[in-house]
Amino acid sequence: MMKKISILGSTGSIGRQTLDVVRANREAFCIMGLSGNHNIDLLEAQIKEFQPKIAAVMDHEKALELSKRLGKCSTEVLAGMEGLIAIATMEEIELLMTAVVGMVGLLPTIKAIQSKKNIALANKETLVTAGEIVMEEARRNQVKIIPVDSEHSAIFQCLKGYNLKEVNRIILTASGGPFRGFQRNQLEKVTLEETLKHPKWNMGKKISVDSATLMNKGLEVIEAKWLFDLEQHQIEVVVHPQSIIHSMVEFIDSSILAQLGCPDMRVPIQFALTYPNRVENQLQRLNFSELRELTFEKPDMENFTCLKLAIEAMNQGGSYPTVLNAANEVLVDRFLQRKIGFMDIPNEIESVLENNPFKKVEDINEIIVIDQWTRDFVNNRISS
Amino acid sequence: MMKKISILGSTGSIGRQTLDVVRANREAFCIMGLSGNHNIDLLEAQIKEFQPKIAAVMDHEKALELSKRLGKCSTEVLAGMEGLIAIATMEEIELLMTAVVGMVGLLPTIKAIQSKKNIALANKETLVTAGEIVMEEARRNQVKIIPVDSEHSAIFQCLKGYNLKEVNRIILTASGGPFRGFQRNQLEKVTLEETLKHPKWNMGKKISVDSATLMNKGLEVIEAKWLFDLEQHQIEVVVHPQSIIHSMVEFIDSSILAQLGCPDMRVPIQFALTYPNRVENQLQRLNFSELRELTFEKPDMENFTCLKLAIEAMNQGGSYPTVLNAANEVLVDRFLQRKIGFMDIPNEIESVLENNPFKKVEDINEIIVIDQWTRDFVNNRISS
Repeated sequence: MMKKISILGSTGSIGRQTLDVVRANREAFCIMGLSGNHNIDLLEAQIKEFQPKIAAVMDHEKALELSKRLGKCSTEVLAGMEGLIAIATMEEIELLMTAVVGMVGLLPTIKAIQSKKNIALANKETLVTAGEIVMEEARRNQVKIIPVDSEHSAIFQCLKGYNLKEVNRIILTASGGPFRGFQRNQLEKVTLEETLKHPKWNMGKKISVDSATLMNKGLEVIEAKWLFDLEQHQIEVVVHPQSIIHSMVEFIDSSILAQLGCPDMRVPIQFALTYPNRVENQLQRLNFSELRELTFEKPDMENFTCLKLAIEAMNQGGSYPTVLNAANEVLVDRFLQRKIGFMDIPNEIESVLENNPFKKVEDINEIIVIDQWTRDFVNNRISS
Repeated sequence: MMKKISILGSTGSIGRQTLDVVRANREAFCIMGLSGNHNIDLLEAQIKEFQPKIAAVMDHEKALELSKRLGKCSTEVLAGMEGLIAIATMEEIELLMTAVVGMVGLLPTIKAIQSKKNIALANKETLVTAGEIVMEEARRNQVKIIPVDSEHSAIFQCLKGYNLKEVNRIILTASGGPFRGFQRNQLEKVTLEETLKHPKWNMGKKISVDSATLMNKGLEVIEAKWLFDLEQHQIEVVVHPQSIIHSMVEFIDSSILAQLGCPDMRVPIQFALTYPNRVENQLQRLNFSELRELTFEKPDMENFTCLKLAIEAMNQGGSYPTVLNAANEVLVDRFLQRKIGFMDIPNEIESVLENNPFKKVEDINEIIVIDQWTRDFVNNRISS
C-alpha cells in the first residue's frame, strides 16, 4: 500500500533528497503536497513530476506566478502560512516531512500533529524552541515524531525495540566542522568560503555555518533532550571527525548501541519515510577494511562557545533556546551576506542571551513573539 | 517476579560470571539447578550460597563425594548426563544457561528446548554441530535462543526491534588474538604461555587457544549462520584489535547498527538473563574521550588457516562442522598438554577434514557418533 505524504520545503536540500528517496521507491509513496520558498522553477518541475494535489509557496506573488505557469495542471496552488498549513494537515496524508529551515516550520508542524499526522522532522527550530509543547502535543495525539537529522535518526534507530527508561545517556557525535583544532585568533580570520566547506556532509548554507560554529551540535543537544525525554547530564557530545558513527545510546546495563554508515542524508530520510520498516536501497555501503580508523575527542567549548551557549540556554529553559536560535539565525544570515565576521556570531549571541527580557513560555504564540523580538533586537544592535 | 533459572556449567568462566550477575540482582533471579565438572569444591560453595533444588556432576564418583560433603543440605545431587538433563528440563525453570564447554552441552540443551525452556546459549558446540536441528527445534517449540557470546549478543541486541528479513549482512569483529600480524614461521614457534595471554578478554583456556588460532571466529561464523538464518555471503569477519565494537548488523537500507562496550562478559550474560529487558548495573562504562581510536583490518586467513577451514566446513555443511569442531577440541587439548605445537592444530584439522567419511547428518545421535569417531581418529593419528 502506498504511503501518502506531504513535504514542507521540497526545494531545499532535505526536500530534494526526500524526493530522491521517493523516486527510488515509486511504488511505496504518493506525494500529496509540496511547498517551496524562493525557487519556484524547481517547485514547478517537482509539481510536474509528482503531481501533488496541493502546492504552497510562502510568498503570495510567487504563488501567483507559479499558478500561472502551471496553467490547467490539476495541482492547486496556495500561498502563505495558510498554504503550508493546508499541506501539513491534508486529510489524505499519514506522514508530513517538515524539511523547511527556520521558524516557519513550527506552526504547520503543530497543526499536522493536531491532525494526527506522523512527522518526519528535519526542521530544527520546532524542537529547539517548542520542544516541550510539541512533544506533549505528539503524546496527546499519539503521533510519532521521527527525526531526520542523522544524529537523532541514529539514536532513534538504536532505540527501536527498547524502552526510553532503559537509556542511561546518549552520545551525540560531531564532526568538529571545518575549523576543528582552531584557536580563537584563527577563528577570527576565517572566511565565508572556508566556513561553507564542510569536511564530511554536503548541506545547505545555514547548517554549514552552524556546523562550523558548533551551534549545530548545540541545537541538536536541545532537540535530543525533548525527542528522547532526557536530562541535561544524559547528553554527551563527542567529536568524531570521520562522521561514520552518527550517534550512540548507552543503556543502563552499560551496553552501547551505535548507528554507522557513509555520510548520506538519504539513509535517515528513507528510514523516516519507511518507518517502522526498512527498505532496500542502492546507497553506498561502508567498507570496514578501507575505513581503517575511527577517532574520538572532546569538543572544544572554550574556542567554540556556541556549543556552550546552547547547552546553557537549554539548562536555563523557557525562552532562552528561542532567543539563542533566533539570534543565531539572524547572525548567520548576516555572516552569509559578509556583513559580520565568524566570531561575531557567538559573541553577539552571548550578549543577546544576557539581555533576554523573557523567562517563561506558555504557548506557541509566545514563542513566535519572542522569536520576532529577538530578530528585531539583533538587527537593531548590528545596524547601530 | 523472580526468574527461575538453571545453569549448566556453573563452575566454568561463564558460569561463575553468571552467578556474579545473579548476585548483583538477587531479587530478580532464583537459581533452581547448577552443574559442575571437576571442581566440586567450587560447586559445593555455589550450592551452599544459592541453594538450588538440584545439582549435577558429570562424573559419578565426584557426584557421590559432593553428596556426602553436602550432608543433609536440601539440594539433591544427580550424576552423569541424566543429571544434566534433569537440571535442563526442570519443571520450574523458564531459562536455561548452557555454559558448559564442549559437546556435553548438546543433548541437555535440545531436551530443554523440547521442554519449552528459553536458552541463554554460551556453548559453541550446540550451534556449530547441530545448528539446523537446534534452531528448527526452537522454532517448533517457540523458544528463544539468546546468545551469550559477546559477538552474537551484540548482533542480537542490534536486531531487537528489527526483522531478520531487513538484514543485509552481519560484521563479526575479531580482536585478532595475541598473534595478530604473525607470519606462519613465527606462529610455528609460539609457546603455550604466549597463546594463553589474550590481549583483551580474560577467558577459559580452550577459548583462549581458539582465539589465538582464529578458530574461535570460525566457530562464531558457523553459529551466526544458524542463529540469524544467514547465507554464507552475509557474514563478514573484520579484525578490530581494540575489542570495543563487539559486532555489527548492516541492514538492507545500508544503515549499520553496532554494539559497543568495555570487554566484560557480564554485559552479554546479564542481557541474556534479563532479556527482553535491560537492568541497571555498576559495570565499567566506555569513555570515548579516553578511547581515542578504533581500527579495522581484514583477517589474515593465509596464516591463520583455522578461520578459512571453519568457513569451508560451514559451506560444505552436513558433518563437516562437527568434524572440524571435534578435531579442534582434541588438538587444543593436546596443545594445552604441550604434546603438539600451535601450527599442528590447523594442519591436523585440515587433514582430518580431507578424510571425513561422513557427509550428511539427520539427527543429534548421528552428530554424537561423528563427533566420537573424529575424536578417536585424531587421537589415533597423533599417537601413531
